[in-house]
This record gives sequence, C-alpha cells and structure tokens, in this order.
Amino acid sequence: MPFEKEKLTNEEMFKLKALSRLAKGDILTMTRLAGTGHPGGSISSLDAYLVLFSYAKLEGTQRDRVVISHGHTSPGVYSALARLGHMPVDEVTAFFRKGGSPFEGHVVKGIPFIDWSTGNLGQGLSAGCGFALASRIKKEDAHVYVFMGDGEQQKGQLSEARRFASKYKLTNITALIDYNHLQISGSIDHVMPQNIIENYLSDGWNIIEINGHDYNEIYAAFRKARNSENPVCILAHTVMGKGIPFMENKEKYHGNPLNEKEYKDALEALEMEDNFEFYREKRKGQWTWKPSVDVQTVNVDTGSPFTYIDNDKLDNRSAFGKTLKDLGDKNIAKGCTICTFDCDLAGSVKTGDFCSAYPDYFFQGGIQEHNTATVAGALSTTGILTFFAAFGAFGIDETYNQERLNDINHTNLKLILTHVGLDVGPDGKTHQCIDYVGLSRNLFNFKTIVPCDPNQVDRTIRYIAGTEGNFLVATGRNRWPVIYRDDKKPFFGDGYTFEYGKMDTIRGGRDGAIIAYGGMVVKAVKISEELAEKGITLKVINMSCVHEIDNDVMKETLAQPHIFTYEDHNVFTGIAPVVTGYLLKNGYRGKFESFGVKHYGASGDTEEVYAIERLDVESMVKALLEIMK
Amino acid sequence: MPFEKEKLTNEEMFKLKALSRLAKGDILTMTRLAGTGHPGGSISSLDAYLVLFSYAKLEGTQRDRVVISHGHTSPGVYSALARLGHMPVDEVTAFFRKGGSPFEGHVVKGIPFIDWSTGNLGQGLSAGCGFALASRIKKEDAHVYVFMGDGEQQKGQLSEARRFASKYKLTNITALIDYNHLQISGSIDHVMPQNIIENYLSDGWNIIEINGHDYNEIYAAFRKARNSENPVCILAHTVMGKGIPFMENKEKYHGNPLNEKEYKDALEALEMEDNFEFYREKRKGQWTWKPSVDVQTVNVDTGSPFTYIDNDKLDNRSAFGKTLKDLGDKNIAKGCTICTFDCDLAGSVKTGDFCSAYPDYFFQGGIQEHNTATVAGALSTTGILTFFAAFGAFGIDETYNQERLNDINHTNLKLILTHVGLDVGPDGKTHQCIDYVGLSRNLFNFKTIVPCDPNQVDRTIRYIAGTEGNFLVATGRNRWPVIYRDDKKPFFGDGYTFEYGKMDTIRGGRDGAIIAYGGMVVKAVKISEELAEKGITLKVINMSCVHEIDNDVMKETLAQPHIFTYEDHNVFTGIAPVVTGYLLKNGYRGKFESFGVKHYGASGDTEEVYAIERLDVESMVKALLEIMK
Repeated sequence: MPFEKEKLTNEEMFKLKALSRLAKGDILTMTRLAGTGHPGGSISSLDAYLVLFSYAKLEGTQRDRVVISHGHTSPGVYSALARLGHMPVDEVTAFFRKGGSPFEGHVVKGIPFIDWSTGNLGQGLSAGCGFALASRIKKEDAHVYVFMGDGEQQKGQLSEARRFASKYKLTNITALIDYNHLQISGSIDHVMPQNIIENYLSDGWNIIEINGHDYNEIYAAFRKARNSENPVCILAHTVMGKGIPFMENKEKYHGNPLNEKEYKDALEALEMEDNFEFYREKRKGQWTWKPSVDVQTVNVDTGSPFTYIDNDKLDNRSAFGKTLKDLGDKNIAKGCTICTFDCDLAGSVKTGDFCSAYPDYFFQGGIQEHNTATVAGALSTTGILTFFAAFGAFGIDETYNQERLNDINHTNLKLILTHVGLDVGPDGKTHQCIDYVGLSRNLFNFKTIVPCDPNQVDRTIRYIAGTEGNFLVATGRNRWPVIYRDDKKPFFGDGYTFEYGKMDTIRGGRDGAIIAYGGMVVKAVKISEELAEKGITLKVINMSCVHEIDNDVMKETLAQPHIFTYEDHNVFTGIAPVVTGYLLKNGYRGKFESFGVKHYGASGDTEEVYAIERLDVESMVKALLEIMK
Repeated sequence: MPFEKEKLTNEEMFKLKALSRLAKGDILTMTRLAGTGHPGGSISSLDAYLVLFSYAKLEGTQRDRVVISHGHTSPGVYSALARLGHMPVDEVTAFFRKGGSPFEGHVVKGIPFIDWSTGNLGQGLSAGCGFALASRIKKEDAHVYVFMGDGEQQKGQLSEARRFASKYKLTNITALIDYNHLQISGSIDHVMPQNIIENYLSDGWNIIEINGHDYNEIYAAFRKARNSENPVCILAHTVMGKGIPFMENKEKYHGNPLNEKEYKDALEALEMEDNFEFYREKRKGQWTWKPSVDVQTVNVDTGSPFTYIDNDKLDNRSAFGKTLKDLGDKNIAKGCTICTFDCDLAGSVKTGDFCSAYPDYFFQGGIQEHNTATVAGALSTTGILTFFAAFGAFGIDETYNQERLNDINHTNLKLILTHVGLDVGPDGKTHQCIDYVGLSRNLFNFKTIVPCDPNQVDRTIRYIAGTEGNFLVATGRNRWPVIYRDDKKPFFGDGYTFEYGKMDTIRGGRDGAIIAYGGMVVKAVKISEELAEKGITLKVINMSCVHEIDNDVMKETLAQPHIFTYEDHNVFTGIAPVVTGYLLKNGYRGKFESFGVKHYGASGDTEEVYAIERLDVESMVKALLEIMK
C-alpha cells in the first residue's frame, strides 16, 4: 500500500532534502543551458514531486497515475525523476529543450510515470478525472495525482472538473496546487484575486493546507488524501525559487533562466559544483534515453452491420445510437468496456438507448463540454472504448483546444457530432456548425468521416470502434433518405464494407461530376436526376472521408468536363480545398466550381435556410445549368 | 432613475400579470406554429423579462444593456417586448424561426434593447462584463442585466466572468438566474449537482433569492442590486411552464412545442382565444418589422508610421507594442478611448508600455482566456477601440468559439497573436499555434494579417486601428530582420502604405515564385539568394493577407514554371489552399508545391525545429533544386 506508514523517518527526510538540493542545481543548469524554461515554479513544485515519485505506486499493475497540469515545471519533474534514478541526470540536464529530444519544454507522456502531455493550463484536472474514472471502472485500487499551478486556478475548466469529480465521487483523485502566489505578471492576488479555498469547497472538495517544502507535511497530506470521502485538494504553500535566497518570491524567475552571475551565486547557495561546461559540451552530442509510452489497446467485437431501408424512417443520428447500443450488447458483458459521454443532449444525440442499457458506462458531464472532452480523451487512452457525442457547436467549436490536446496525446477518442451544418436549421447560426471539417483538418491524428445515410453510419461506427485512433464522425440532425443502387438495393447494405479513404460513386455520368458528403449526397442525386431530364448526366461521388482523396475514383473523374464540390459547410474550409489540391496537382483541364456556405445561416426550416444560401436542389440545378450550358 | 420608487403599485402588478398571461399564449403559439423552440424556459424567464423591460432605462443616452445568455428563451423575450409595445405581436408570433426573419431561434442583436447575439451557453456574463466595463470607462450611469439559465451555471467560463467582475468591481452588472431546476436531461441536481449560491459567494458576488414570478420581489431585487457594493446575482426561483398546470416542472417542455391537444388545453388554462389558424395563414406571408442595430464606431487618429532599420534589432511583437503605445498617445488624451486586454502575458506580448502609460485602459484578465475574449469582443462594439493580445494557442485555439460568437456579433475586435508557428520554438507543440490561419478562415467577418517585418507590423496595426471590423494580426515571437528593397531602403518604409489584400513582390525572378508570409518571407529571400548562386532566379511574394489573393500580382505570376507556398503553419489549412484555388481556377500550367508543417513540432531552438520539419533554408534549397532541376 502506498503511503502506508504513518510518517517519514529522519533518514528519509534527509535523503529527500539532499535530492532536492541536487535537483535544484539540475533545474538551474538545464534552463540556463537551454537559455529558456521555467526555473521558479519548477523549484517550488519540486519537493512535492520528490515525495510523490518516492512513495506513490507508480509501477506494475494498478499503478497510480500522474498528471502535471502546469507542464512548464518540466525541469522540476525531470530532475526529480532523474535524481530518484528513473532517468539519466546528465541527459535530462544536457538535452532539456533541445530540438527532437524527449526532454521537452512542457511535460509529455512517455516520461516515466507521466501519462498525459500538458502545456495548456486548466486541462490537467479533467485529464486526472478521466484516469480516476478508468481506475474506478476497472475496479483498480489506483490513485491519480494532479499537480497544478496557482495562477492556473483561474481557468474556468477547473470548476467543471471539480464538479465532475464530486458528482462521480472520484475520491481516488488528489490535486496538489503549488501555491507560490506568483504568476508571470506578478502576485496572483494582483493579477486575478481568487479565493481558491472557497472555490474548491463550494464544489464539494476537501482542502488540506500544508507547507509545500516540509516533506513530512507533504507525505501526511498525500496519505490523508488517499482515504478521504471527498476528492481532496492539497494547497501547498510554497516559495518560488525556494532555497536560492535571491530567487525567492520573485516572479521574474517564473519563466527566465539565470544569467551567468546569478547562476554562479545560486550554485554557491546550493553548495554545488559548477559543471556547466561539461553539460554545454555534452549538449553538442546526442541523447540515448528513450521515452516509453504505455499504449493500452482495445479489442472490440464490432458485430454485424444493420441494414435499413427507407421505410425504417431512420435518421443518421439514430442509426449511430442503435449501433452504439449494439456495440454495448456485443462487448460489455464480455468484459470489453465501452463508455459514452454526454453533455445534456442525450435525447438529441441518441445515446439514450445505450444509457438505459448500460447506465454504469454512461457519463453525464452536464453543460461542461471543456471538461467532458478532456475526461473522455484521457479515459480513451486506458484501454476503454470511449465515445463522446455532442452537437458540432459544442463538440468541436467550443472544445477545439481540448481536442487539440487530446490529439497531441494520441488519444483513442470517438467523437460523434450529430448536429452539423445548416441542416441544424431553426436553432440558427450559433448552432449551425459549418466548420467541423475545417477545424479537424488541423488535427494531424484525427480522421473525419461524414456518412451519407443510416447504413453508412452503421458501418462507419463499427469501423471506428474497431480501429485505434481519434475519429470524428458527423451524422447530421435531419433524416436523409437511404441511398439505393440502380438495382434498388441499399447502396451501403450487403456487400458494402467501410474502408477509410474510399469514395463511393453513387451515380454515373459523363457531363460532369459532383462530389458531396453527408446530407448533400442525396441532394446531389436529386440534382443529377433533374439534370438527366434535360439530357445532362452528372456523376455523383460520395466523399465521406472528407480529408482524403481516393486516387482510383478521382483519376477516372479527371476526364469529366466539369467537377463540382457541394457541401453543407463553410466553402473555404470543407472538401473544396482538398479536391482543389488534387485537381491542380493532376493537371485537371476542365472547369471546377465549389458550392458551400458563404454566410452565417438563417434560423428556419432547413430547406428554407438552404434556399437562402442557394444550396437547395432548385438553386443548384439552375447554377449548374448556367455553368454547363 | 430606473427602479427609483420603492415598490410597484397594485395597478402595475395587475398590468404585468395580464401581459404575462398574453405573452404565455404567444410563446405557445409561436413555438407550436414553428414546430420548434423552447417554451418551458421562455415561460419561466418571462416575468423577469416583463419587469426589466418595463422599468430599466433602455432608451436614450446612458441606456442600460441587456444580454440574454440563455438565448433559446427567445419566445419569452419576443413576447414580452411585443406585449410591451416594442415589436408587433402578430409578427413575432407568426414568423418565429421562419427562415430569414429577424425572430431567430436564439436571440440576436437588433431586437429592441438586445445588444448581443447569443446561443452558446456560458458566454453571456462575460459579454455583460464587457458592456459594464464600457459604461464604467465612459463614466455612464448605465446598468447591465444578464439573464441566464440554471443549467448554464455549469459552464466554467462563468467562474472566470465572476472573478473578472469582482476584480474590476463591476457593481453595475446584475445577473439573474432563471432557477427552474430543470435542464434538457432533467433535474439540474441530477445532471450535475452544483451549489450555485456558494459558487457565486466564493467569487465575491452577492446573492438575492426571490420568487421569480412575484413582480414585487423581482422589482425589489433589481432595485436593490442597482445599489450594491458587489456584483449581484438574483437567484429567481421559478417554475418551468409556470401557469399552465400540465406543463409545470416538466423538462419535456424545455425544448418541445405543444401538440394540438396540449395547445388547446393550455389556451384554456390561460383563458385565451385560439387564433392559431390566423397565425398559420399569416406565416405564409412576409414580415415587415426590421431589427435595428446600434452601431457605435470609433474615430481613431492612426498617427504617423514608425520606420525601423535592422540595427534597431526590433522583433515584430515589440513593433506592435510600440505602435499600440503610440496610438494611445495620439488618441486617449483626446478622448478617443483605446483599451487593451491581457491574459497574464503582457511582458511577452509587449503590451507593457501601453499598460504603464495607460493603466486605466489596460485590463488584466488573468489566465481566463475564454472570459477575456468575450469581454473584449463586447467592449469593442461600444465605440471603444479594443485590442486583445495573446499567444496563438490561447488567443485562438483555446477561444475559437468565443471568437466565433464575437464574429457572429460583428464585433470590432483587434486580436493580436504574438506567438504563432514553430517559430515559438522551445515551448513545444502545445504552444506552437500552427492553425490560426485555418481557424480564422472559418470566421466570415474576421480578416487575418501576418506582417513580415517590424515596419509592416507598424503599418498594419495603424491600418486595423482605423478600420472597422474584426482583425487577427499575428506577429511571431522571434526577431525577423527588416526587409529591404534592392536600393537598400526598408521595403515597408517610406512610400509604403498597407492595403488589405495586396501582395508584395519582395524579389523578382523568372524560374519560379515562392509565396510566404510572416517570418518565412526573410527565409524565402535567403532561399532565393542561395538559388541565385546556382543561376536560378526565384520571385519572392509576401502574402501578408493570408486569406486573400491579389489578382494583379498573381496574374503575372501565372507565367512562372514553378509556384511554391512556404509557411510556418499546418500545410493543409494555411495559404496553400487559397493559392491552390486561384491557380486551378486560372488554369495554371506550371508545377505547384506547398511547404508547411505536417507534424506537431518538437521542443527546441526555432531553427532546430524548422530543420526537423525540413522547413529551414538549407532543406528548402535542396527541395527546390530537386523540383526545379
């Protein structure tokens, strides 16, 4: 049991004190050598790091997890770990912030016992909630430690995380605030007055105040927090630059390394030898230490696809809900865990059936999308298949930076956006998410799919469930008809398998091709039918993988005299640029035109809104005839 | 004085009660007619709306401001305003949520006395802080009222707004929470338990609890709040669907209109006539009422540009800081107000000089970017020139949805991002904002400019100061040399005027053209110089207006056998797609290649990071030689 004995021995305290002195020297050396970094907070957090890394259960099964939310204290983390023997002291010191080295400016996962890359303040407690939830779900006796700065407490996402932890009684989480009273711009009381204690108490947490440089107090607080009825926040009163007299309580040292004189004075104060030249020389070489990320994969039974016909009158979001429930049925009883997160929209995003059947695996995050996105992201890295379903405006517009940090963390999140595009209709422009394709295009590890009918939705959801990595799947709000083949069988029914990156040729044609996705595919089919009446044949292509070109399909499309993209999305950031790039590169000689959203949408019936934006079938037929005549 | 007399007369109460009954009928009719909308909360908020719209000072100079943060209660707002004679009852009822009508699903500015379009929960209190600050700065005796839902209280941004209001003693703001205890998914205590009172108290607010359907209590609370030493939150205990027995306290009616039977029963309960057929018929026609937005413009003296030479050793962000200070000098004493917002980064984003000179116009928002973005956005609409300077990761990645709502509100915000691109270097991937061009491309009313040297920065900042609308200007972190003309004079010095959309031909060439912006321009010049040594001439184009094609410059570039884009930005979402689109449309026959960031960056010296991503001069020269040989 970690923190089992009542208190530290004198010998242990002596050892911690000795390590702290050495680590402080390392911190000052590495930041001065790199010419950049954050020595002040690294030193004020250091003693707590040393105690935790010495006494928590960080290895083996059911191990404790650590999140360093104020990731800029990386020198403190590296030096503490190194002095405790988990990393080579000379390498972390010599190669801190050297391009390509694992000793990055903000802590990244892969550093021993570190499970979450950080750098954006305010998200760490939410990640901690995700790990604590994982431990709870797996019935593990593991604890989660989240270290934070005091300036960071100003971030609103923390209040969301606190309430989430209280709601789900995550007593296996302990937060520690490095309360040195300074942020970059000076005293936290001056920058943004805040009653941190009252904030935590008001959200149902317990507070333990300690001297953050007293090893026995730190130890006792960690020990006490491990057996609390509420989540605990340790408010560790610390001193920025502790132990180096001229640095103490000076915000200047938050983000500035020491100059030569200061450095020499500091080493003297620490009674340490000056090995700067040794490290400077070493930095010219190469590091050998390698990070090791603990990747936990999921082995999901993706079941057998459901096939719908038009008479089923099913919208795409309901198709998602049915497949999600089926995945639950196929897996949860067998011990393969699937979790679903909601932000007060279950009825609309159709996770209700899953929730009713598996209430223990359904998490209601409330109207707290920032926290929920991060909790879900962290949980998804623990070998649990994780879905988060929301409207586009909340699931990606509001939480873009949370998904960005998830992406940086190579999470395994399945993000489902039900309400996207002008298709959202009457709720109006704030709710019409017309940028999700463009936003996710920035995230290197996210794949985005917009299926065009319930059958493709079903197969897509099963595909992403069985495939590692982040996926964004958008379903749309309204019911779109089932797409049929010429032989009247469902296009995405028997014989169809979803393959990432593949385009589908829905209708043939020689006078031009129109490329669409989601709800615009069936409209494109209608457009092609109307043009056919005028003797014009239009090929209809479904580009459900909106960031990808299918070379096979596009190659044969190059012969078309006209190519159009047609999307319920900002025309500048949707598929148009993807297709444009391909056409230019492949020397397309025909005429290209992109159709999409060019203004924030009106509030009205979806068809009214489309008509105002001239994206309805009638306007499109007119526009295409004008171009193709 | 608004709310001057002590209490309402019986006659006034009788009138309010009568209006409330009629307005409830309107709410039920309009939502049923539209087949969509939120009757439940509209009815629970209604009585407070009626009191406020009756007794606040909403017209003339120094008028009070209103923000409806839970914008989905629009039927309550419309019916209250209409029954008080500010809008035509029959039109708001008939055309609610009809495509193109001003009676949108979520309240938009232009509706009488409404100054902020809403729909994204959690942002309204921040907007209110912006208006309250404007009133304070202008020394007006005006009050700001922010209405919110209770489920909405879960959003973290509210805690940021509360602290901001407390810090700046915004006692001229009153919040009112419609505390009906229900959100979409049911009881707020079930969805996300929260101690709203303790949350507000812990951030220094006062709480007044009232019966939200008792006109005298509502009136008395507004009156008391107007003379408080702290910002006040009125917690109005209400009943969802109040007055229609079968609707009361049923979350079902949060977002669902009544069916025919329910509607008839409700009208009976309200003792109202059924005019549904009249409205149904009317809806087929056209509305005549027009919204009117109170646009307050700024008349700024943009001063005379500063010209720097390389020996000044000035980085672009410092050039921004100097111009900002100069704008302050030229305007503030003359009564043209300029405000600057910071989130604990003043030293890095170089707003320190302005802060020292004009501390009353400098607002330190703390590490609360969501709140600050919205406060600044709202303030910018009040005739005050407003700058918000931040790192890219915080100023746009973290706050994308706040800027999106600002954009929808046609704010006049000048957003300066100092730290963007891999150029950020050692702070690593979380801080390297490589998506700002792509993100802002989604915002229809934002113009984005990335100047390439201190002289262009100066002229750009003066330009955006003098031009209405939202601008994003990115400066970069490192010092980039001054660009010179062939005659050794600064390229962007005397004789240069910034013109939005114009590209600059920095160097001539015939064998190819490279298009860059920001810090890559000087690198492109170096590349051209290195290629020149091998007998290859490369034209260098500066595309500082990253979303715009300059037809004149590009037309003559079409003759080049090679065109390259070169950017310190995600290669998929930067200028490459903009240039690609133009080249395809104009039948470019040469070879095009885009160079940009394809992976999250390393943590190291900027040049190391560029080299890893093969965007350094050496790698680029090699790559171009390979292509052009």
